[in-house]
Amino acid sequence: MPATPKPFVICAPEPRSLDLIFTSDKLAVLRDRYELFETEAEAVAGLDDATLARARYVLGQPPIPSETLAKMTSLRAVLNVESNLLDNMPYDEVFARGIHVVTTGAVFAVPVAEIGLGFALDLARQISASDADFKAGRELWGGDGNLSARLLTGADVGIIGFGDLGRTLNRLLIGFRCNVKVHDPWLPPSILQDHQVAPASLDEVLKDSDFVFVMAAVTTENRGFLGAEEFAGMRPGAAFILLSRADVVDFDALLDAVERGHILAASDVWPEEPLPPDHRARRLPGLIHSAHRAGAMDVAFKKMGDMVLEDMALMDKGLPPMRCKRAERETAGRMRSKPVDTN
Amino acid sequence: MPATPKPFVICAPEPRSLDLIFTSDKLAVLRDRYELFETEAEAVAGLDDATLARARYVLGQPPIPSETLAKMTSLRAVLNVESNLLDNMPYDEVFARGIHVVTTGAVFAVPVAEIGLGFALDLARQISASDADFKAGRELWGGDGNLSARLLTGADVGIIGFGDLGRTLNRLLIGFRCNVKVHDPWLPPSILQDHQVAPASLDEVLKDSDFVFVMAAVTTENRGFLGAEEFAGMRPGAAFILLSRADVVDFDALLDAVERGHILAASDVWPEEPLPPDHRARRLPGLIHSAHRAGAMDVAFKKMGDMVLEDMALMDKGLPPMRCKRAERETAGRMRSKPVDTN
Amino acid sequence: MPATPKPFVICAPEPRSLDLIFTSDKLAVLRDRYELFETEAEAVAGLDDATLARARYVLGQPPIPSETLAKMTSLRAVLNVESNLLDNMPYDEVFARGIHVVTTGAVFAVPVAEIGLGFALDLARQISASDADFKAGRELWGGDGNLSARLLTGADVGIIGFGDLGRTLNRLLIGFRCNVKVHDPWLPPSILQDHQVAPASLDEVLKDSDFVFVMAAVTTENRGFLGAEEFAGMRPGAAFILLSRADVVDFDALLDAVERGHILAASDVWPEEPLPPDHRARRLPGLIHSAHRAGAMDVAFKKMGDMVLEDMALMDKGLPPMRCKRAERETAGRMRSKPVDTN
Amino acid sequence: MPATPKPFVICAPEPRSLDLIFTSDKLAVLRDRYELFETEAEAVAGLDDATLARARYVLGQPPIPSETLAKMTSLRAVLNVESNLLDNMPYDEVFARGIHVVTTGAVFAVPVAEIGLGFALDLARQISASDADFKAGRELWGGDGNLSARLLTGADVGIIGFGDLGRTLNRLLIGFRCNVKVHDPWLPPSILQDHQVAPASLDEVLKDSDFVFVMAAVTTENRGFLGAEEFAGMRPGAAFILLSRADVVDFDALLDAVERGHILAASDVWPEEPLPPDHRARRLPGLIHSAHRAGAMDVAFKKMGDMVLEDMALMDKGLPPMRCKRAERETAGRMRSKPVDTN
Repeated sequence: MPATPKPFVICAPEPRSLDLIFTSDKLAVLRDRYELFETEAEAVAGLDDATLARARYVLGQPPIPSETLAKMTSLRAVLNVESNLLDNMPYDEVFARGIHVVTTGAVFAVPVAEIGLGFALDLARQISASDADFKAGRELWGGDGNLSARLLTGADVGIIGFGDLGRTLNRLLIGFRCNVKVHDPWLPPSILQDHQVAPASLDEVLKDSDFVFVMAAVTTENRGFLGAEEFAGMRPGAAFILLSRADVVDFDALLDAVERGHILAASDVWPEEPLPPDHRARRLPGLIHSAHRAGAMDVAFKKMGDMVLEDMALMDKGLPPMRCKRAERETAGRMRSKPVDTN
Repeated sequence: MPATPKPFVICAPEPRSLDLIFTSDKLAVLRDRYELFETEAEAVAGLDDATLARARYVLGQPPIPSETLAKMTSLRAVLNVESNLLDNMPYDEVFARGIHVVTTGAVFAVPVAEIGLGFALDLARQISASDADFKAGRELWGGDGNLSARLLTGADVGIIGFGDLGRTLNRLLIGFRCNVKVHDPWLPPSILQDHQVAPASLDEVLKDSDFVFVMAAVTTENRGFLGAEEFAGMRPGAAFILLSRADVVDFDALLDAVERGHILAASDVWPEEPLPPDHRARRLPGLIHSAHRAGAMDVAFKKMGDMVLEDMALMDKGLPPMRCKRAERETAGRMRSKPVDTN
Repeated sequence: MPATPKPFVICAPEPRSLDLIFTSDKLAVLRDRYELFETEAEAVAGLDDATLARARYVLGQPPIPSETLAKMTSLRAVLNVESNLLDNMPYDEVFARGIHVVTTGAVFAVPVAEIGLGFALDLARQISASDADFKAGRELWGGDGNLSARLLTGADVGIIGFGDLGRTLNRLLIGFRCNVKVHDPWLPPSILQDHQVAPASLDEVLKDSDFVFVMAAVTTENRGFLGAEEFAGMRPGAAFILLSRADVVDFDALLDAVERGHILAASDVWPEEPLPPDHRARRLPGLIHSAHRAGAMDVAFKKMGDMVLEDMALMDKGLPPMRCKRAERETAGRMRSKPVDTN
Repeated sequence: MPATPKPFVICAPEPRSLDLIFTSDKLAVLRDRYELFETEAEAVAGLDDATLARARYVLGQPPIPSETLAKMTSLRAVLNVESNLLDNMPYDEVFARGIHVVTTGAVFAVPVAEIGLGFALDLARQISASDADFKAGRELWGGDGNLSARLLTGADVGIIGFGDLGRTLNRLLIGFRCNVKVHDPWLPPSILQDHQVAPASLDEVLKDSDFVFVMAAVTTENRGFLGAEEFAGMRPGAAFILLSRADVVDFDALLDAVERGHILAASDVWPEEPLPPDHRARRLPGLIHSAHRAGAMDVAFKKMGDMVLEDMALMDKGLPPMRCKRAERETAGRMRSKPVDTN
């Protein structure tokens, strides 16, 4: 009697690779449970009908035209391991057929939240500036070096965007007993209250916080929503920590606000990446510079593979995926965070 | 009918001052409740008998010879706001008379723990080194800049010394869900377990941790207890964060271990302060430099006054002090952390 | 210029009523924002085409045949405030059209978890049995009354089913520092680990726990899955606390296990409700009896209205509902918990 | 060469016994480390001088007259395992000599706090009353049985007395996110704030709480401080939970307040123990009766031995005891909680 054939998976995980997102042990599990068809994203639309018809899962987010999708009669899920949604498949048809589109961006939550908290403590205590001064022999000792120092414990903290990143940051802050306000227009107030944070307008978050963390994705509606007026409304000396995408900020206005000493800032993302060598931001004091490194840790990529395997196991049993985040019919088309080219 | 005279307080808070440790509001409360006799520490032993006899409290730790103490017949407490115990009064006689000696070092716990966590996140993610690279135009983007990056979440953390500083650090770590081991030979295991940390030997803490925080005071027994052998026993790439006193460490051995790349380190304290301009530690990569700034924040000094007022209020009611830390008959003579000269 | 008409809502919330699930303030908000069409569940299918075509929301879960659904061309969501899914609408068509079906069962999580914890503490310390003894003049004093007493703090706890109820119970247990194992076949292990509980098989949960809480809904697959063999595998003296539905248990086997003194139990649900006056369960010692009261608190019902209003507000803005729980295409047909007749 | 003699311990732990407070393993440790002299409390004063002179520790609280104490020249500590201080030794002399008097009452904190929380949940949800009704065939189903039900989550909670018991209760409440007010006149406000509870007057605690927990020991100052006026000031329907000693309450006034339906109550302690068979409290509805069983669990007694061993180990090393609670010079004479006769 022939064995049940293994479920068939089209793998086109660019810009990731199977080796990036799976540990060798987990890759062995993947190969053991599934029949893998490894290809390039651009090649998927051209695959033969029989191959398309067999695919239970697509690992990656290759372009899938409507006519290709129609041939993928066994498809249960597109497992997008880049995690920003490209506008390269007919999401309405996908959703109408009950095919799940899931993303693995949650893997970046802990790395991003940790470096974000590190930036906050650095700005509060001038850790990197003082280290540079010490190396240069111009350090100030004791209280003389603490004139602008502040505590995070008990501080007023604002978080803009309360998805996986914001929630993880909020968890890291537990021991600091901060007064946390959150602005997230896609969430109802009671969900925020359940997380023991106070729902607030963007204005309130900006003007009532000592530390403002920006974790909001770029959407069709929020490009550049943090500009000169918003920075001017912040408390003098407050710290602005940008962790999501440069496009939510008017970057020149941000640099101006830091340059005139109104606020301190840290940023992991930049209007151009790499930033030109002569960009004014490069040597600006009061700004901590990070080269889009907040999330891109190997442990994060490897967790993508774990998540994907767990959700495929659920779907194999006829259950819905629970581990990855599902793209939503209503919002899939609104996301505008640029995918990365490199890992 | 004459009013009850206000309790009498000899104030000699050097190196602090009343203005440093009390907000103006709290200083007004102090002056309202008590009759203050403000003097210099060196002058206390020479005060006239009537003045000595009236003193209910001494605020500061002036030299108090045995014969002076004998004249202080109303004395209930010495409120030491420097917080390191000098060997300048006959503690045995003090304790035999039931006079409390209390210290206010707990005010430094939050500032020290916060900067310590900041150091840890900096070492884990190379925040200050990457900022310097970015400014110099040699930054690495994305995953290329994260080859040695590690997470604090879920990491093995060791804490040496579990007084106010260690406990506060442990609280700040709650959200990180670390596996925390603690070495403190002055505490029974079950107190550590109640704080949900694992009691451990010094060896275990050193060899099983990704991050080691040193919060132990210097005592007659532990000078230089962290030396070449101890550093060699640490995990390669682990972070060593020194927050208490330089004397617990063989500093040359520490610098050697960092220089050969075995460990990363951050230090707030130094064998000489200020450190000579040409000291080898100054430009050592892999070491974050902080100029004894961890605790010396104005909010910390002001909290000293709050604590002192609360405990004086309890003692005025015939109750024992509960807010400050009490010096202990057994250990008062063992403390050897150098007092500070400056605030 | 005519005002934009208010969105149209068909209200058929049986067995709830608008007055049950909305406070008067929130009902005023509902009436202000929406045009309500209040009817009976059975009448919905017979409404005229124009009315059906206008409905943006259905509040309740009336029978909706396929041909009725086809006429509801503006429908965005069915807001089911009973919370158990009846098999009375073509869910596949509903989902294919991207219409959300949401339930409000989460309102019961806190009431159920609290009484469940109360049952556990009662069984651990014999609170109600000792109260009855005391009233009858046969109480045992001090340690004599504690021969079988046990602590919840540090105990091994098992939770079966980790939806809203299980998660809320787990939150209430935080301060007790229990060792919590969870069995939930619809969830991947890493979600459980994120909640700091250990994923476990049903067997492990039963045999390794001092307290077992059953929070699992009835499905097509799990009727009576807790039977004689399962109870026999439990630790002697362990407490079994049934909070979801009687149908997951072989009730006679449960009563037998309690009767022979192998385990203690508490139950909020019964094979027949009301239970016949002469049912053997009624006077069984070692069993705490609760008359399906765990969730049915007025504050819970009122929270339904809050949740519904929040999600309607999101959907009015073109966003997906986030507050209520969404029925899933894969599992909607598997749920078999009997709806209630009374509130 | 002769071995160092083992430290000498006079054991007179009445009303406890060594077997009650030590597991067999820990008793073996005790016997291995120390030379035990087991005697009765009343016999200690009559021991010969050589025996008295050798004693490093007294385990128990036997009467020790001044002249006996003078002969105990090696004495470091009295380890009181009853835990209420009797007025049977000259505490001033004891403290002047730097001898520690420590008590082990903290072992009761978890058992007492757990049953206290159990009482609260029972009163909130009428668990034992409904169980009795169900057994009697007069139960009310669903919401009909919940007319007076209330949640603990988010409730206003008052705690009177914030020693080990109050703090442990506060820890158990973490997951309930209550608004906790505490009255404790022996503690400064900032210690309460550090525990994230609000310092409050007795009046505020009584009038602003849905649940009031009394954990305060009896002192020379607080006998009967909770009387008719205090109960009248409580919120209608509030729950009053008495866990420390009957003497802090005017018990008749408490029973009156329950009888007229103003408040609900639970009590573990009684004006006479055992309570006379015909006492009016016995059959009073709205009152949960517990026969002084809150603390007296075997696991609690066994923990006394653990604590004593840990502190003796510290004192053997010349360190102060840290695990048990130290009696205080100022308050030792004020404690008036009656010791127990039975365990």
